[in-house]
Order: sequence, then structure tokens, then C-alpha cells
Amino acid sequence: MYRRHNFLAMSESPSIAWTPNGAVRLLDQTLLPGETRYVEIDTIDGMIEAIRALRVRGAPLIGVAAAMGLAAAAQAQLTPGVSPGLTPEWFEHEAERLAACRPTAVNLRWAVERMRIVARSAFAGGPTGVAARLRVEAQRIWDEDAAMCRAIGEAGAQLIPSGATILTHCNTGRLATGGIGTAFGVILTAHQQGKGIDVIACEARPLRQGARLTSWELAEANIPARVIVDSAAAAVMARGDVDLVILGADRIAANGDTANKIGTYQLAVLARAHDIPFYVAAPRSTFDVTIPSGDEIPIEERPAAEVETAKGVSVYNPAFDVTPAELITAIVTDRGVILAPYLASVASL
Amino acid sequence: MYRRHNFLAMSESPSIAWTPNGAVRLLDQTLLPGETRYVEIDTIDGMIEAIRALRVRGAPLIGVAAAMGLAAAAQAQLTPGVSPGLTPEWFEHEAERLAACRPTAVNLRWAVERMRIVARSAFAGGPTGVAARLRVEAQRIWDEDAAMCRAIGEAGAQLIPSGATILTHCNTGRLATGGIGTAFGVILTAHQQGKGIDVIACEARPLRQGARLTSWELAEANIPARVIVDSAAAAVMARGDVDLVILGADRIAANGDTANKIGTYQLAVLARAHDIPFYVAAPRSTFDVTIPSGDEIPIEERPAAEVETAKGVSVYNPAFDVTPAELITAIVTDRGVILAPYLASVASL
Repeated sequence: MYRRHNFLAMSESPSIAWTPNGAVRLLDQTLLPGETRYVEIDTIDGMIEAIRALRVRGAPLIGVAAAMGLAAAAQAQLTPGVSPGLTPEWFEHEAERLAACRPTAVNLRWAVERMRIVARSAFAGGPTGVAARLRVEAQRIWDEDAAMCRAIGEAGAQLIPSGATILTHCNTGRLATGGIGTAFGVILTAHQQGKGIDVIACEARPLRQGARLTSWELAEANIPARVIVDSAAAAVMARGDVDLVILGADRIAANGDTANKIGTYQLAVLARAHDIPFYVAAPRSTFDVTIPSGDEIPIEERPAAEVETAKGVSVYNPAFDVTPAELITAIVTDRGVILAPYLASVASL
Repeated sequence: MYRRHNFLAMSESPSIAWTPNGAVRLLDQTLLPGETRYVEIDTIDGMIEAIRALRVRGAPLIGVAAAMGLAAAAQAQLTPGVSPGLTPEWFEHEAERLAACRPTAVNLRWAVERMRIVARSAFAGGPTGVAARLRVEAQRIWDEDAAMCRAIGEAGAQLIPSGATILTHCNTGRLATGGIGTAFGVILTAHQQGKGIDVIACEARPLRQGARLTSWELAEANIPARVIVDSAAAAVMARGDVDLVILGADRIAANGDTANKIGTYQLAVLARAHDIPFYVAAPRSTFDVTIPSGDEIPIEERPAAEVETAKGVSVYNPAFDVTPAELITAIVTDRGVILAPYLASVASL
């Protein structure tokens, strides 16, 4: 059960793993970079809490974690005396609750839907077979995500000039995906190709995923890097210190409009004003061709308490923003780099 | 000695005051908004520490505090047994140390130079007269700053439409000046004129002067307000939620280029991209006509420790950036509103 090769391939502190008894072990990202602590989950309530509290985060990794969580929770339902046991009704109900626990990222619902399809066809064979097939499917989603990251890294590294200084935002590496990462996968691949790149990571307030998590990934990979506060991005661009921007996506509409961490739109406007290429990196599962444009993407608001302020003053705390396709130079996918007009190139994926 | 009228006019927690024995009492801004604690200072070392640690901050208030600190330290030199006593050499040496303790804001050196001129002409009359004249001059600098704030408020309020939502950055109110503030003075005056404005305050990482200090000033003044993280500015602009941007300045060059809190340049680029007026508010003492453009303004870097990150990753932490004059719609001064071309309009001040 313990997938040793995955464990060792990723690092000594993998962001996600199976435990020997079939539960999901998550690296609690809320405690990084200071503390490396794990949580073990074998219930849907536990996975919803972990996703909502951002113990696990990053659109692709949330998808992987949700699939693995469904498999683990399904297996736990087989334990004698557990009610109602692994029934179709239990599964559908829990899957729907899990799919709805964060609204913006499309990968969560996408992964849950894949698990649902497997479950529906498997229930004919009885609950034990369902649990086994769910585990196989969850592992497949994880393995596919790792492969997509590698493909994104290979495709995107071609866009990176030797010696480039790359500005990135939020977190897109192995703490955000089931593999080496999306935008971070491109950075890591270019670094491993000996291109001599260095990175400027934006802090990403309020939860500081850039300063806490991306800096941790950069340090682990020995990539030269600096962290800046989010409001220093234009200043470093004006100094000529940035050769390109690359970052991830939580959801991409059919026309290429991209929802991602708050501040992404701002960086796109600033990159355009400073004539700097602006790239988005995301696997196909991040594209949602059912929505024609970014106007339809729901934007999650996070709790005001994430931004401390004086008593009596409210906080507007959107987790994401939408970057119009016309500000995006290219989108790096696991099927290669696509360019505007995105309506055609997205459809071709 | 205890200037009761100033104390009451400002609030129950003034940002600066004389103590009954002639020292300077500063509200320790590093502890706001959670805690209201004061420090009393009657040495130049003490004032340098307070300025460097940002216990007192904001370009105009630093000027007022430096002048009052020189007066208080000069008086303390009159205490029997204190060496070397209040001598011209002691004063020049201490004044120079104080003027050099933060490089970007021009008000600090400007205020110290005024105190030097008074000291030089006063030393003919003996040390006791010097201390008294320094105190009078420091009070004059403070009173003038308060009057400049009122004038800036009156001039700037004319630019504010009824019902406007005003985005501001960092802190420019009574925690940053000797009066009601510069940009905040405009906001407060418009509010008191019944214009029904509301405010979006950017957090201003890394030290969060917006979320900590401006929100405190807004709450005290009962002005409807929200705080956003710095990277949400473009998103709120794109929603149509921002009618104008107004903020302060640490130094303005002869051509109108403006050094201010890191993130100001970014907001100017974003305001232009969203066709939103971008105003700077500052007293004449903030203008430095000895430097032709922003290229000559030294940009202070703050300690990396202000931005926590993973071990092994460095931090680039500039305290200020420079906004080119062409991105500034108008500059509100205590002598009225000036417009481009700034080379002529700045000279006319």
C-alpha cells in the first residue's frame, strides 16, 4: 500500500501520500515553512476541513487529494459496524459535499466526477470491489497529474531564455500539484536544464503562499531566488529585473480568461505595461470549456480574519481574480504551448 | 509646557506631544492598532532609534519629531553634570546624525536644517537661550505642519466627488503628520463636508501601515472603509469600485517624480490602465527641487527580516518606489492643486 517509489521520488516530505492502512497523509501546509507536520485523513469531513483550512491547496493537488480522500473514506466505510457502510447513496452524498467545499478551482469537481463515474459502474460488483476500484482511480489521477506536470515543465522550459529572471506568484510546485508543479514545473525544468535562471517570488498575501511555500520549494531545489512583497512587483519590473512572468491557474474559461490567486490580474496589467511576457501554466483539467468567459467564474471570498485590521473596519478579501485572455502571452499545457486566439486553441486541447 | 490645546485638539491618543518636563512623547506606532503605548524621548539616540524602528513614521511627522527631538535633547544638555553640555559642536554633530538616520524622506533633513539655522544664530546668546529658541522653532514646525495639513485638506477636497470611493495606500493621517494628514487630510475634509465618501485602504506590506494605522485613523474618524491586500487593488479597480486614488509622498523631485511607499508606482500604473485619477498630496516641505528627477532619489532598503520566508531564500525589501510624474493626475499641496507640466508648477510653489 505504501507507494515507496512515489514517496522517495518526491522528497523526504511529500505533500501527499497513502498511509500503510489506506488513509491519506497530507503535509499540513499551514505550518510551513517553519514546521513539517502531517495529518492523516480517512473521512470526507476530514478532507473538507483540510481543503477549507488550506492544509492542502493548489488546484491540481486539491483534485488529487479529493480523489484519494474519496477512496480512503470509501474503504473506511467497509470497516465492520460503520454505518451506513459503502452504499451508492452514501457515496453520492459525500462526493457532492466534497465537490462543493471550495468553489473556484475546477479540478476539485473534475476529480470527484471521475471518481463518481468509476463508483457508479463498480457498485454492481459489491462494496469491496468499489473501494478497490476507487483506489486505483485515485492513484491514476495522481499519476496523471505528475505526468502532466512533467509535460508542462518540458513544454514551458522552451519559453525560458538562458539566464532569465522569472517572476512568479503564489505557489505552483509540488505543494500545489501531484508532481513537480505547473509554473514551478517549468521553472524547475529550466533550472535542471542548466539555464541558470533565478526567481523572484511574490509573497502572495494574505496567506503568504509565495513567501512560505514557493520559497520552501525554491530552497529545496537550490534555485537562486528572492522574495518580494506583492506591491514591489512593478518596481522590480521598472528596474528591468524581470524577463518574464509565469504562474498557475485555478480555472481557465473557453476563451482563455484565467482565474488564479488574487494579484494575478494585477501582475498581468503590470507585465503588459512593462512589455514583459506573461505566461500561465496549467494542465488540461484546469480548463472549463463549459464557461465561455471569465465573467462566469465564481470568485471565492476568504474570511476577513485573514487580514488583521483595526476594530470597526471591514476587509474585502477575494481569494482569486480573473485575468482577461488578451493579457496572456501564452498558456503552457501538458499538450504544449497554446497562443491566442484562445477560443480555438483551447478547443483544440 | 504641556500644550493642552494641541493634546485635546488631536485626540485622546496624540501621535506626538511634549511631556511636562520638555521631552517628546511619541505614540509607539509599531504596536498599533492593538496597543496604545507611549515612549518618552530626550536624547538624539532615542529619537534615531524611534525613527529607525518606525515607532514614529510618515515623512512630515518624522520632520516634526526630529525638530522636537533636537529641542528636547538640547534642553537635556543643560542639566548640571551632563557632558559636553549644549555646545555648538555637540549640536552640529547630533543634528547631522539625526538628519542621516533615514535617507528617503526629505522632511527629516529639512526640519533639521531649520533647527540648525536657529541654533547657529542663537548660540551668541548662550546655551539657555538656544534651548528656548529651539523649542519655539520646533513648535513652529509642528504648528506649520498642522496648518499645511488643513490647507491640503481644503484644496484636495474640491477634487473629491460626492459619494466617491477613494483608494489610498500606506498611512498619511495624524499618525504620519503633525496634523490631520496629507492624503488622509483630503479624505477627512471631504468626509466632514458631508460628501458621503468611503475608503479602500491597501494593507501596505511589509509593515502593514494601511491595515494597522490607516484603518485605525479611519475607524476613529467614523469613515466607512474596507481594507484589501495590496494585490487586490487591480481587481477592485476592474470591478469599477474605485473612483480615484490619493496617497502621500516622501519626496517629490523638481519634475514631479514622486518617491513614496513601495506599491505607489504600481497603483499609478494600475490607475492609468483603468482610467482612474491618481492624486498625490504633500506639503511644500516634501518637494526637493535640488533633484531634477526621480532617478536621483535614494531608495532605502529595509531589513529582510520584515518578510518571513524559508531558510536560504533572500528578500528584496525596498521601502519606497518612484512614480514618474506622467502617471500623476495632480498634486495637492498646501498652496493648492498643481497640474502637469510639473517642472513649471513645482517651481511656482
